Amino acid sequence: MTQMTRIERRTGTAFELKRGQRLIVCDPMGEQVSDLVAFGLHDRDEVISNGRTFDYQDTIYLTTGHRLYSNRSNIMLHIEQDDVGRHDFLLTPCSKDTFRILYNDDDPHRGCFGNLAAALDDYDIGADRIPCAFNIFMNVPVDGDTGRFSVQPPLSKAGDTITFRAEMDLIIGMTACSAPTSNNGTMTPIDYRID
Amino acid sequence: MTQMTRIERRTGTAFELKRGQRLIVCDPMGEQVSDLVAFGLHDRDEVISNGRTFDYQDTIYLTTGHRLYSNRSNIMLHIEQDDVGRHDFLLTPCSKDTFRILYNDDDPHRGCFGNLAAALDDYDIGADRIPCAFNIFMNVPVDGDTGRFSVQPPLSKAGDTITFRAEMDLIIGMTACSAPTSNNGTMTPIDYRID
Repeated sequence: MTQMTRIERRTGTAFELKRGQRLIVCDPMGEQVSDLVAFGLHDRDEVISNGRTFDYQDTIYLTTGHRLYSNRSNIMLHIEQDDVGRHDFLLTPCSKDTFRILYNDDDPHRGCFGNLAAALDDYDIGADRIPCAFNIFMNVPVDGDTGRFSVQPPLSKAGDTITFRAEMDLIIGMTACSAPTSNNGTMTPIDYRID
Repeated sequence: MTQMTRIERRTGTAFELKRGQRLIVCDPMGEQVSDLVAFGLHDRDEVISNGRTFDYQDTIYLTTGHRLYSNRSNIMLHIEQDDVGRHDFLLTPCSKDTFRILYNDDDPHRGCFGNLAAALDDYDIGADRIPCAFNIFMNVPVDGDTGRFSVQPPLSKAGDTITFRAEMDLIIGMTACSAPTSNNGTMTPIDYRID
Protein backbone atom coordinates (compact mmCIF):
# COMPACT_ATOMS: atom_id res chain seq x y z
CA MET A 1 0.00 0.00 0.00
CA THR A 2 1.28 3.46 -0.93
CA GLN A 3 2.28 5.62 1.99
CA MET A 4 0.14 8.58 2.96
CA THR A 5 1.23 12.09 1.97
CA ARG A 6 0.71 14.71 4.65
CA ILE A 7 -0.86 18.12 4.08
CA GLU A 8 0.58 20.10 6.96
CA ARG A 9 -1.70 22.25 9.14
CA ARG A 10 -3.13 25.35 7.42
CA THR A 11 -1.60 24.44 4.03
CA GLY A 12 -2.82 23.08 0.72
CA THR A 13 -1.70 21.12 -2.32
CA ALA A 14 -2.69 20.23 -5.88
CA PHE A 15 -2.04 17.11 -7.96
CA GLU A 16 -3.29 15.08 -10.90
CA LEU A 17 -5.75 12.22 -10.41
CA LYS A 18 -6.32 10.07 -13.46
CA ARG A 19 -9.56 8.36 -14.42
CA GLY A 20 -9.91 5.09 -12.47
CA GLN A 21 -7.48 6.11 -9.73
CA ARG A 22 -8.65 6.29 -6.15
CA LEU A 23 -8.02 9.15 -3.74
CA ILE A 24 -8.09 8.13 -0.08
CA VAL A 25 -8.31 11.03 2.38
CA CYS A 26 -7.61 10.41 6.07
CA ASP A 27 -8.16 12.61 9.10
CA PRO A 28 -5.13 11.45 11.13
CA MET A 29 -6.04 13.11 14.43
CA GLY A 30 -9.80 13.58 14.09
CA GLU A 31 -12.11 16.62 13.82
CA GLN A 32 -10.29 18.14 10.85
CA VAL A 33 -11.70 19.34 7.52
CA SER A 34 -10.18 19.20 4.03
CA ASP A 35 -11.54 21.47 1.28
CA LEU A 36 -11.47 19.59 -2.04
CA VAL A 37 -11.88 21.15 -5.50
CA ALA A 38 -11.57 19.43 -8.89
CA PHE A 39 -10.94 20.63 -12.45
CA GLY A 40 -10.75 18.81 -15.77
CA LEU A 41 -7.11 17.94 -16.46
CA HIS A 42 -7.54 18.52 -20.19
CA ASP A 43 -9.87 21.52 -19.91
CA ARG A 44 -9.67 23.63 -16.76
CA ASP A 45 -12.99 25.32 -17.55
CA GLU A 46 -14.70 22.13 -16.39
CA VAL A 47 -15.00 22.40 -12.61
CA ILE A 48 -16.72 20.67 -9.71
CA SER A 49 -20.19 22.12 -9.03
CA ASN A 50 -22.21 21.88 -5.84
CA GLY A 51 -25.37 22.92 -7.69
CA ARG A 52 -25.07 20.33 -10.48
CA THR A 53 -24.32 17.68 -7.85
CA PHE A 54 -27.39 18.67 -5.82
CA ASP A 55 -29.46 18.63 -9.06
CA TYR A 56 -28.63 14.99 -9.72
CA GLN A 57 -28.23 13.56 -6.20
CA ASP A 58 -31.31 15.12 -4.55
CA THR A 59 -29.54 15.66 -1.23
CA ILE A 60 -27.18 18.23 0.27
CA TYR A 61 -25.45 15.55 2.39
CA LEU A 62 -23.24 13.41 0.13
CA THR A 63 -21.77 10.07 1.20
CA THR A 64 -21.01 6.53 -0.06
CA GLY A 65 -22.51 5.89 -3.50
CA HIS A 66 -22.99 9.54 -4.42
CA ARG A 67 -21.37 11.16 -7.46
CA LEU A 68 -19.87 14.65 -7.56
CA TYR A 69 -20.64 16.41 -10.86
CA SER A 70 -18.98 19.15 -12.89
CA ASN A 71 -20.52 22.36 -14.23
CA ARG A 72 -20.90 20.42 -17.52
CA SER A 73 -22.97 17.68 -15.86
CA ASN A 74 -20.20 15.07 -16.07
CA ILE A 75 -19.36 12.84 -13.12
CA MET A 76 -15.95 13.81 -11.72
CA LEU A 77 -15.72 11.73 -8.54
CA HIS A 78 -17.61 8.77 -7.11
CA ILE A 79 -17.62 8.36 -3.32
CA GLU A 80 -16.82 4.67 -2.88
CA GLN A 81 -16.31 4.50 0.87
CA ASP A 82 -16.94 6.88 3.77
CA ASP A 83 -16.27 6.27 7.47
CA VAL A 84 -17.89 9.52 8.56
CA GLY A 85 -21.05 10.19 6.55
CA ARG A 86 -21.13 13.93 6.99
CA HIS A 87 -19.48 16.46 4.70
CA ASP A 88 -20.39 19.93 3.50
CA PHE A 89 -20.92 21.16 -0.06
CA LEU A 90 -22.63 24.47 0.72
CA LEU A 91 -19.73 26.67 1.78
CA THR A 92 -16.65 28.17 0.15
CA PRO A 93 -13.01 27.81 1.24
CA CYS A 94 -12.09 30.14 4.10
CA SER A 95 -10.15 33.17 2.88
CA LYS A 96 -8.69 36.50 3.97
CA ASP A 97 -12.18 37.93 3.44
CA THR A 98 -13.97 35.30 5.50
CA PHE A 99 -11.46 35.72 8.35
CA ARG A 100 -11.96 39.50 8.13
CA ILE A 101 -15.76 39.39 7.92
CA LEU A 102 -16.55 36.38 10.14
CA TYR A 103 -13.66 36.50 12.64
CA ASN A 104 -12.85 40.25 12.59
CA ASP A 105 -9.16 39.44 11.99
CA ASP A 106 -7.02 42.50 11.30
CA ASP A 107 -4.20 40.50 9.73
CA PRO A 108 -5.98 37.43 8.37
CA HIS A 109 -4.45 34.13 7.26
CA ARG A 110 -4.84 33.45 3.53
CA GLY A 111 -6.96 30.46 4.48
CA CYS A 112 -7.88 27.44 2.37
CA PHE A 113 -8.75 29.80 -0.48
CA GLY A 114 -5.26 31.33 -0.53
CA ASN A 115 -3.67 27.91 -0.13
CA LEU A 116 -5.71 26.49 -3.02
CA ALA A 117 -5.00 29.53 -5.21
CA ALA A 118 -1.25 29.13 -4.62
CA ALA A 119 -1.31 25.39 -5.32
CA LEU A 120 -3.55 25.66 -8.40
CA ASP A 121 -1.43 28.44 -9.86
CA ASP A 122 0.98 25.67 -10.92
CA TYR A 123 -1.80 24.43 -13.21
CA ASP A 124 -2.69 27.90 -14.57
CA ILE A 125 -5.96 27.97 -12.64
CA GLY A 126 -6.74 31.48 -11.36
CA ALA A 127 -8.22 32.32 -7.96
CA ASP A 128 -11.52 33.48 -9.50
CA ARG A 129 -12.05 29.96 -10.83
CA ILE A 130 -12.09 28.33 -7.36
CA PRO A 131 -15.65 27.09 -6.77
CA CYS A 132 -17.52 26.02 -3.65
CA ALA A 133 -15.42 23.16 -2.30
CA PHE A 134 -16.53 19.69 -1.31
CA ASN A 135 -15.57 20.18 2.32
CA ILE A 136 -14.55 16.71 3.46
CA PHE A 137 -15.55 15.93 7.09
CA MET A 138 -17.06 19.42 7.53
CA ASN A 139 -20.20 19.25 9.64
CA VAL A 140 -22.81 21.87 8.76
CA PRO A 141 -26.27 20.80 9.93
CA VAL A 142 -29.11 22.74 8.29
CA ASP A 143 -32.45 23.50 9.95
CA GLY A 144 -34.94 22.60 7.22
CA ASP A 145 -37.66 24.85 8.64
CA THR A 146 -35.68 28.09 8.90
CA GLY A 147 -32.85 27.34 6.45
CA ARG A 148 -30.35 28.40 9.09
CA PHE A 149 -27.19 26.33 9.57
CA SER A 150 -24.21 26.26 11.91
CA VAL A 151 -20.67 24.96 11.58
CA GLN A 152 -20.17 22.17 14.13
CA PRO A 153 -17.10 20.05 14.99
CA PRO A 154 -16.55 17.28 12.42
CA LEU A 155 -17.79 13.80 13.27
CA SER A 156 -14.48 12.31 12.04
CA LYS A 157 -12.34 10.36 14.52
CA ALA A 158 -8.58 9.79 14.26
CA GLY A 159 -7.89 7.50 11.29
CA ASP A 160 -11.27 7.89 9.58
CA THR A 161 -11.14 7.90 5.78
CA ILE A 162 -13.19 8.67 2.68
CA THR A 163 -12.37 7.18 -0.75
CA PHE A 164 -13.13 8.79 -4.11
CA ARG A 165 -12.75 7.16 -7.53
CA ALA A 166 -11.99 9.53 -10.39
CA GLU A 167 -14.43 9.20 -13.30
CA MET A 168 -12.34 11.50 -15.53
CA ASP A 169 -8.78 12.88 -15.58
CA LEU A 170 -8.65 15.59 -12.93
CA ILE A 171 -6.60 18.21 -11.20
CA ILE A 172 -7.39 18.06 -7.49
CA GLY A 173 -6.82 20.86 -4.98
CA MET A 174 -6.95 19.94 -1.28
CA THR A 175 -6.24 21.59 2.08
CA ALA A 176 -5.90 21.00 5.79
CA CYS A 177 -8.45 23.58 6.87
CA SER A 178 -7.29 26.88 8.36
CA ALA A 179 -10.55 28.06 9.95
CA PRO A 180 -10.82 27.26 13.69
CA THR A 181 -14.63 27.02 13.60
CA SER A 182 -14.53 24.19 11.05
CA ASN A 183 -12.35 21.85 13.11
CA ASN A 184 -13.16 22.68 16.72
CA GLY A 185 -10.01 24.82 16.90
CA THR A 186 -7.61 21.92 16.24
CA MET A 187 -6.25 22.94 12.81
CA THR A 188 -4.40 19.61 12.44
CA PRO A 189 -2.95 18.05 9.22
CA ILE A 190 -4.75 15.92 6.63
CA ASP A 191 -3.28 12.80 4.98
CA TYR A 192 -4.03 11.36 1.54
CA ARG A 193 -2.83 8.78 -0.91
CA ILE A 194 -3.56 7.82 -4.50
CA ASP A 195 -4.13 4.15 -5.33
CA MET B 1 -43.35 54.27 -12.88
CA THR B 2 -41.43 52.46 -15.60
CA GLN B 3 -43.42 49.78 -17.41
CA MET B 4 -42.58 46.15 -16.87
CA THR B 5 -40.55 44.27 -19.48
CA ARG B 6 -41.76 40.76 -20.20
CA ILE B 7 -39.49 37.71 -20.40
CA GLU B 8 -41.57 35.39 -22.57
CA ARG B 9 -42.08 31.76 -21.51
CA ARG B 10 -38.99 29.55 -21.71
CA THR B 11 -36.71 32.45 -22.71
CA GLY B 12 -34.05 34.58 -21.05
CA THR B 13 -32.43 37.99 -21.21
CA ALA B 14 -29.41 39.95 -19.98
CA PHE B 15 -28.99 43.65 -19.15
CA GLU B 16 -26.90 46.11 -17.17
CA LEU B 17 -27.92 47.13 -13.66
CA LYS B 18 -25.95 50.05 -12.21
CA ARG B 19 -25.05 50.52 -8.57
CA GLY B 20 -28.00 52.03 -6.70
CA GLN B 21 -30.58 50.93 -9.27
CA ARG B 22 -33.41 48.64 -8.23
CA LEU B 23 -34.53 45.52 -10.07
CA ILE B 24 -38.16 44.60 -9.44
CA VAL B 25 -39.11 41.09 -10.55
CA CYS B 26 -42.79 40.14 -10.81
CA ASP B 27 -44.45 36.76 -11.28
CA PRO B 28 -47.41 37.95 -13.39
CA MET B 29 -49.45 34.74 -13.27
CA GLY B 30 -48.09 32.99 -10.17
CA GLU B 31 -46.08 29.79 -9.56
CA GLN B 32 -43.27 30.72 -11.95
CA VAL B 33 -39.49 30.78 -11.32
CA SER B 34 -36.82 33.12 -12.67
CA ASP B 35 -33.16 32.07 -12.59
CA LEU B 36 -31.00 35.12 -11.85
CA VAL B 37 -27.21 35.33 -12.29
CA ALA B 38 -24.98 38.39 -11.83
CA PHE B 39 -21.50 39.37 -13.03
CA GLY B 40 -19.34 42.43 -12.42
CA LEU B 41 -19.94 44.91 -15.25
CA HIS B 42 -16.30 46.03 -15.22
CA ASP B 43 -14.80 42.59 -14.57
CA ARG B 44 -16.78 39.54 -15.66
CA ASP B 45 -14.61 37.24 -13.52
CA GLU B 46 -16.53 38.50 -10.49
CA VAL B 47 -19.69 36.42 -10.27
CA ILE B 48 -22.56 35.74 -7.88
CA SER B 49 -21.75 32.86 -5.48
CA ASN B 50 -24.20 30.76 -3.51
CA GLY B 51 -21.40 29.54 -1.21
CA ARG B 52 -20.05 33.00 -0.34
CA THR B 53 -23.61 34.16 0.28
CA PHE B 54 -24.28 31.20 2.57
CA ASP B 55 -20.95 31.91 4.36
CA TYR B 56 -22.05 35.42 5.30
CA GLN B 57 -25.82 35.06 5.71
CA ASP B 58 -25.93 31.81 7.73
CA THR B 59 -29.05 30.55 5.97
CA ILE B 60 -29.90 28.78 2.72
CA TYR B 61 -33.27 30.59 2.49
CA LEU B 62 -32.64 34.21 1.49
CA THR B 63 -35.28 36.96 1.78
CA THR B 64 -35.78 40.62 2.71
CA GLY B 65 -32.66 42.13 4.27
CA HIS B 66 -30.24 39.50 2.98
CA ARG B 67 -27.30 40.30 0.72
CA LEU B 68 -26.14 38.21 -2.23
CA TYR B 69 -22.33 38.04 -2.44
CA SER B 70 -19.83 37.51 -5.24
CA ASN B 71 -16.98 34.98 -5.41
CA ARG B 72 -14.76 37.88 -4.23
CA SER B 73 -16.85 38.43 -1.09
CA ASN B 74 -18.37 41.70 -2.32
CA ILE B 75 -22.09 42.43 -1.95
CA MET B 76 -23.72 42.39 -5.40
CA LEU B 77 -27.42 42.62 -4.57
CA HIS B 78 -29.46 43.53 -1.50
CA ILE B 79 -32.97 42.09 -1.21
CA GLU B 80 -35.04 45.11 -0.19
CA GLN B 81 -38.55 43.69 -0.46
CA ASP B 82 -39.99 40.23 -0.96
CA ASP B 83 -43.67 39.25 -1.18
CA VAL B 84 -42.94 35.52 -1.26
CA GLY B 85 -40.14 34.65 1.19
CA ARG B 86 -39.02 31.47 -0.48
CA HIS B 87 -36.34 31.21 -3.17
CA ASP B 88 -33.66 28.67 -4.00
CA PHE B 89 -29.89 29.15 -4.18
CA LEU B 90 -28.85 25.48 -4.19
CA LEU B 91 -29.56 24.44 -7.77
CA THR B 92 -28.25 25.27 -11.22
CA PRO B 93 -30.21 26.50 -14.24
CA CYS B 94 -32.02 23.70 -16.09
CA SER B 95 -30.17 22.68 -19.25
CA LYS B 96 -30.12 20.16 -22.06
CA ASP B 97 -28.28 17.86 -19.65
CA THR B 98 -30.74 18.25 -16.80
CA PHE B 99 -33.66 17.60 -19.15
CA ARG B 100 -31.83 14.54 -20.49
CA ILE B 101 -30.81 13.17 -17.08
CA LEU B 102 -33.81 14.19 -14.93
CA TYR B 103 -36.65 14.09 -17.49
CA ASN B 104 -35.27 11.48 -19.96
CA ASP B 105 -35.94 13.89 -22.85
CA ASP B 106 -34.59 12.67 -26.18
CA ASP B 107 -34.67 16.11 -27.80
CA PRO B 108 -34.30 18.42 -24.82
CA HIS B 109 -35.01 22.18 -24.65
CA ARG B 110 -31.87 24.28 -24.07
CA GLY B 111 -33.43 25.35 -20.77
CA CYS B 112 -32.58 28.33 -18.58
CA PHE B 113 -28.90 27.47 -18.97
CA GLY B 114 -29.05 27.68 -22.77
CA ASN B 115 -31.17 30.83 -22.58
CA LEU B 116 -28.69 32.47 -20.17
CA ALA B 117 -25.70 31.39 -22.28
CA ALA B 118 -27.26 32.94 -25.40
CA ALA B 119 -28.15 36.20 -23.62
CA LEU B 120 -24.78 36.50 -21.82
CA ASP B 121 -22.86 35.85 -25.04
CA ASP B 122 -23.62 39.51 -25.90
CA TYR B 123 -21.44 40.41 -22.89
CA ASP B 124 -18.63 37.96 -23.77
CA ILE B 125 -19.54 35.68 -20.86
CA GLY B 126 -19.08 32.02 -21.79
CA ALA B 127 -21.40 29.18 -20.78
CA ASP B 128 -18.79 27.67 -18.44
CA ARG B 129 -18.91 30.86 -16.36
CA ILE B 130 -22.61 30.48 -15.50
CA PRO B 131 -22.80 29.74 -11.76
CA CYS B 132 -25.54 28.38 -9.54
CA ALA B 133 -28.38 30.84 -10.03
CA PHE B 134 -30.41 32.66 -7.42
CA ASN B 135 -33.66 30.98 -8.40
CA ILE B 136 -36.31 33.59 -7.65
CA PHE B 137 -39.60 32.11 -6.34
CA MET B 138 -38.21 28.53 -6.62
CA ASN B 139 -39.43 26.42 -3.70
CA VAL B 140 -36.96 23.71 -2.64
CA PRO B 141 -37.61 22.61 0.94
CA VAL B 142 -34.72 20.71 2.52
CA ASP B 143 -35.09 17.98 5.15
CA GLY B 144 -32.45 18.95 7.69
CA ASP B 145 -32.16 15.43 9.08
CA THR B 146 -31.55 13.56 5.84
CA GLY B 147 -30.35 16.43 3.64
CA ARG B 148 -32.84 15.39 0.98
CA PHE B 149 -34.85 18.06 -0.83
CA SER B 150 -37.65 18.24 -3.38
CA VAL B 151 -38.71 20.83 -5.92
CA GLN B 152 -42.21 22.04 -5.01
CA PRO B 153 -44.56 24.54 -6.72
CA PRO B 154 -43.53 28.15 -5.98
CA LEU B 155 -45.41 30.00 -3.23
CA SER B 156 -45.70 33.07 -5.49
CA LYS B 157 -49.17 34.30 -6.44
CA ALA B 158 -50.05 36.41 -9.49
CA GLY B 159 -48.52 39.86 -9.10
CA ASP B 160 -46.05 38.99 -6.33
CA THR B 161 -42.71 40.81 -6.53
CA ILE B 162 -39.19 40.83 -5.15
CA THR B 163 -36.94 43.92 -5.24
CA PHE B 164 -33.13 43.91 -5.40
CA ARG B 165 -30.88 46.97 -5.04
CA ALA B 166 -27.55 46.73 -6.88
CA GLU B 167 -24.55 47.37 -4.63
CA MET B 168 -22.15 47.43 -7.59
CA ASP B 169 -22.38 47.81 -11.38
CA LEU B 170 -23.64 44.49 -12.71
CA ILE B 171 -24.60 42.44 -15.72
CA ILE B 172 -27.76 40.51 -14.86
CA GLY B 173 -28.97 37.36 -16.61
CA MET B 174 -32.58 36.30 -15.99
CA THR B 175 -35.05 33.75 -17.32
CA ALA B 176 -38.65 32.62 -17.26
CA CYS B 177 -37.97 29.06 -16.18
CA SER B 178 -38.23 26.23 -18.72
CA ALA B 179 -38.40 23.24 -16.35
CA PRO B 180 -41.97 22.02 -15.66
CA THR B 181 -41.10 20.72 -12.18
CA SER B 182 -40.01 24.17 -11.00
CA ASN B 183 -43.28 25.93 -11.80
CA ASN B 184 -45.96 23.26 -11.39
CA GLY B 185 -45.99 22.77 -15.17
CA THR B 186 -47.14 26.32 -15.95
CA MET B 187 -44.00 27.67 -17.72
CA THR B 188 -45.46 31.21 -17.80
CA PRO B 189 -43.60 34.52 -18.42
CA ILE B 190 -41.72 36.68 -15.90
CA ASP B 191 -41.88 40.50 -15.77
CA TYR B 192 -39.24 42.93 -14.50
CA ARG B 193 -38.41 46.58 -14.43
CA ILE B 194 -35.44 48.73 -13.41
CA ASP B 195 -36.08 51.80 -11.23
